[in-house]
Amino acid sequence: MDKPDREQRHRHRMQRKKEVVDKAIARADKEQGLLLILTGNGKGKSSSAFGMVARALGHGMQAGVAQFIKGRSDTGEEAFFRRQDGVTWHVLGEGFTWETQNLARDIETAQRGWAIVRAMLQDPSLHLVVLDELTYPLKFGWLDLTTILNDLKNRPPMQHVVITGRAAPEALCEAADTVTEMQDSKHAFRAGITAQKGIDL
Amino acid sequence: MDKPDREQRHRHRMQRKKEVVDKAIARADKEQGLLLILTGNGKGKSSSAFGMVARALGHGMQAGVAQFIKGRSDTGEEAFFRRQDGVTWHVLGEGFTWETQNLARDIETAQRGWAIVRAMLQDPSLHLVVLDELTYPLKFGWLDLTTILNDLKNRPPMQHVVITGRAAPEALCEAADTVTEMQDSKHAFRAGITAQKGIDL
Repeated sequence: MDKPDREQRHRHRMQRKKEVVDKAIARADKEQGLLLILTGNGKGKSSSAFGMVARALGHGMQAGVAQFIKGRSDTGEEAFFRRQDGVTWHVLGEGFTWETQNLARDIETAQRGWAIVRAMLQDPSLHLVVLDELTYPLKFGWLDLTTILNDLKNRPPMQHVVITGRAAPEALCEAADTVTEMQDSKHAFRAGITAQKGIDL
Repeated sequence: MDKPDREQRHRHRMQRKKEVVDKAIARADKEQGLLLILTGNGKGKSSSAFGMVARALGHGMQAGVAQFIKGRSDTGEEAFFRRQDGVTWHVLGEGFTWETQNLARDIETAQRGWAIVRAMLQDPSLHLVVLDELTYPLKFGWLDLTTILNDLKNRPPMQHVVITGRAAPEALCEAADTVTEMQDSKHAFRAGITAQKGIDL
């Protein structure tokens, strides 16, 4: 096959593909606040949520972030976003439950945290709300799933919410518009590499 | 079981768990530049890479981003990160190949782009390099995989590289330290919802 032929076939194939893609895009014309779940054991759930915060701020939108569980305050994301306009940042956890070793305090911390989240879910000036690692307090039973689903459902119609964490409950995924399961095909940690600044924290 | 009992059992269980987790963390003590691949059909690959850029900047690190394919220049991530210190941003693509419909130009654009990437992969002052949607020019054969693997291998030892895009080639995954396959369990686009600012762009 000579070169002009290859070029022409490529062009025809791409013209057909463009028609298919354009039609699919034309069909998707609804605008609404989305509920996204980023779950699974793979690396990239929280960082993806923070990337969406960056996108939102780039469009001049307002974002709110609540980090459950994570007790440390030396993460790159927190240092970075705290100095940005347009984003409010809450660290609601005191570390993983095997660090605190105090069940009553864990429950109290989580519930105090949810009261802060609820206020964000009632604030139409927030275009994006990130609930980072929310699945853990749910899994441990520190927060009531029905209450949370209800608060999510009653949020402003154009508000996006992104929830991260392993093992998202079935009912939460059912309520979501987009669910990504991040599969851990390979992880540097298992090869003895410690959490890296800029990558894992 | 009364309450003090429950508390005590929880504390014991969490003490044991903490020992296991602490040991695993102690074993992972290596520091090195990581190669991460974020692939699969699910939502969250590029946003995760941008979240890592935010983390890196939060630690005072320098980052470089190259976006292949994406021709549009109205994305939130670009608007946002272009106004940050510590990050250089390159848009190397002219849109998907079914948009350009010109094979020779696609190849030329990709190869010109790789020359820019190679310079980043030789620059030890860059702590993090993001190659967004690199898998597409690889898949279409516009870039040579062997050349790319070689350039990645010869980068500065502490430089992290994050590559995103569907269908990452096997050999690229083999060379990587961390691979996440983002599975698309549910996607708002299929329910007729268009790409949303702050979420998808």
